[in-house]
Amino acid sequence: MTKYRFADRLSRLGTETAFAVSTEAAAHAAAGHKVYPFHLGDMNIRTPENLIEAASRAMRDGKTGYCSNYGVTELREALAEDINGSHGTDYAMENIAIQPGGKPVIGKFILALMNPGDEVLYPNPGYPIYESQIEFHGGKAVPYQYVEGAETFEFDVEEIERAITPETRLIIVNDLQNPTGAEASAEQLKRLGELILRHDLLVLCDEAYFDIRYEGASKSLASLDGMAERCVILYTFSKRFAMTGWRLGAAVGPREIIDVIANLNVNDESCSNHFIQYAAIEGLRGDQSGPRQLLKTLKARRDKAVDLLNTISGLRCLRPRATFYLFPNATEAMAKKGFSDYEAFRADALAQTGVSFCTRLHFGRPSGEEQNLYIRLAYAGIDVDQIEEGLLTFKEYIEG
Amino acid sequence: MTKYRFADRLSRLGTETAFAVSTEAAAHAAAGHKVYPFHLGDMNIRTPENLIEAASRAMRDGKTGYCSNYGVTELREALAEDINGSHGTDYAMENIAIQPGGKPVIGKFILALMNPGDEVLYPNPGYPIYESQIEFHGGKAVPYQYVEGAETFEFDVEEIERAITPETRLIIVNDLQNPTGAEASAEQLKRLGELILRHDLLVLCDEAYFDIRYEGASKSLASLDGMAERCVILYTFSKRFAMTGWRLGAAVGPREIIDVIANLNVNDESCSNHFIQYAAIEGLRGDQSGPRQLLKTLKARRDKAVDLLNTISGLRCLRPRATFYLFPNATEAMAKKGFSDYEAFRADALAQTGVSFCTRLHFGRPSGEEQNLYIRLAYAGIDVDQIEEGLLTFKEYIEG
Repeated sequence: MTKYRFADRLSRLGTETAFAVSTEAAAHAAAGHKVYPFHLGDMNIRTPENLIEAASRAMRDGKTGYCSNYGVTELREALAEDINGSHGTDYAMENIAIQPGGKPVIGKFILALMNPGDEVLYPNPGYPIYESQIEFHGGKAVPYQYVEGAETFEFDVEEIERAITPETRLIIVNDLQNPTGAEASAEQLKRLGELILRHDLLVLCDEAYFDIRYEGASKSLASLDGMAERCVILYTFSKRFAMTGWRLGAAVGPREIIDVIANLNVNDESCSNHFIQYAAIEGLRGDQSGPRQLLKTLKARRDKAVDLLNTISGLRCLRPRATFYLFPNATEAMAKKGFSDYEAFRADALAQTGVSFCTRLHFGRPSGEEQNLYIRLAYAGIDVDQIEEGLLTFKEYIEG
Repeated sequence: MTKYRFADRLSRLGTETAFAVSTEAAAHAAAGHKVYPFHLGDMNIRTPENLIEAASRAMRDGKTGYCSNYGVTELREALAEDINGSHGTDYAMENIAIQPGGKPVIGKFILALMNPGDEVLYPNPGYPIYESQIEFHGGKAVPYQYVEGAETFEFDVEEIERAITPETRLIIVNDLQNPTGAEASAEQLKRLGELILRHDLLVLCDEAYFDIRYEGASKSLASLDGMAERCVILYTFSKRFAMTGWRLGAAVGPREIIDVIANLNVNDESCSNHFIQYAAIEGLRGDQSGPRQLLKTLKARRDKAVDLLNTISGLRCLRPRATFYLFPNATEAMAKKGFSDYEAFRADALAQTGVSFCTRLHFGRPSGEEQNLYIRLAYAGIDVDQIEEGLLTFKEYIEG
């Protein structure tokens, strides 16, 4: 019973239920047990020294007052240049509004472009804040699926097209996806772009993991013909530069939309922290050995984890070329252990082995049709030796 | 003509029109003219060295990953203790959700507690973001006035009561007010508290300037009987510790409401920057010579500015004991110069003298009944010698 009359919209607000997994893991550790933290979206890798040095210097240089609600000019120029280099786009600083993290772009995109009653397509399984923000602000969140393929998880352009109605205005695309690590083919992206034009949609392109890539080159929907004027890219410094706790990102898109988002900045937080933007400039333009070492570290973890998971009877794990997530099919393993319920399996695995992970349940409501059961392991917050020790223990638990 | 179909709510979104004054002042300076920046809400005083040192240390200590969406425990404890000391309240860390600035508390308070169609009382003249956020999220913004009294600007509790309807749910209170520097008497606060109980309202208590005080002690509505459970305090580190560009603040209030705001944090920005929270801990618990020096500097500026303004024929300026704003009555001075239009007067004064200030217009729509004309001068961003030179020039302009 609450004594307060809260706003009705709160009944439609979701959260990241994965935080509850962190809390349980912490309690398990506090009780004296060993924990293998595969649940974390955070990194146990420190921000590169040259970035820390740049932020300290900027503080001492007096960059401690407000800056523009759009962000520091030099950072916007550096980011436009960087994205043009990887995307083949033609962005200028006017296309960029710096944000206190990548995440704020989700809510601002929706507030700027969605009316109550509008339908918004979003990936499921997917990052749970999409659905939460769409519904919180009165929209109808319409999921499209990611299904396990031979080499990667895949969305189905025809399924997406069937879900479109006259009320559909927006689509959220998160290629290089959390939680599945999925990557669209050039052909799929092309067909998605055609669909977006055909149905006159605008796109939130969540590219949080664009630069966390171990082989090949990332592709962006925004690079395709006609797409830059329809896409707002969610950019974040968090992963690429191990800056998760710094809270720095950007909305990158058509100038008209960026101007609206910049006015939302005025209304919400005035501007992003001033001096940390100089660390981001150093990240983009300075010595790249930090980001290189980061990718090397993550790749070794990925390979160790995928190799070990695939030795476990009843588990099958793809090897994503990007992100730091694995989404193994655990259907048989769970059956072998007598579980059909995700939460019961997760809690038992934690209690018996200390291996802490999320499941498909933390990434949106499963459709009634899903036959397979998946768990999600992140390897950004756990070292290779702990990956090995944890997954060998997990193997014993599943097979024993 | 826009090519995008933006959300309807944007037609109700306001902004801080004062930013346009900054832009004009910058253009005037860029054209080679001297500018006296009385328009700034920002400070030209650097953050104290011990805070900068604490942030640098925290970065190097690896506080670069995510922290709790509620903020760092030690900071929440330190802030509860600090506020209890100045307010006589009984807050614990559970009553505190750290924010990326004080400003985000405005929108989150409204999203948490206001339904579309609800009426929200807000001060006018006042900080323009209140009205903007209320209307943006579908509420009805109902102004109450601040009127010039003998020693301070005053709101009228009876006027507020007359404005209350069955749809009124919330009131925004900004004692130690921007732009007027107004301070309520103990009797007024008491009567305001009684009205809030009588009409079952919840309160956003914007206390951004609570610690920017030169004589006496600040009082908080939240300190009165029965008020702590009805008030959400907007707290900011910006002014007290000269940390405007760091973007760090907090929502302080009843645990149930704070839990909701903390979930809005998860949805909006995950958490506030991790390592800068250690600078705030140092601010609250460490050496206080920085904040002391800050107040000494600001007090000297206030006295210089008030003394000089009151020598100008046709200007009358109260001497606020808190904030860093002055709101002189310029009715006669404007008449003498032949101006009845605020913007024309402001532009002419800037062009003729380089003295840059805001006017009453930047703080909400004037009611039809206002007889007097006011300008707003801030002295946080201008040194004493420049205050003197600028205001002597301004005197000559008005009187010459």
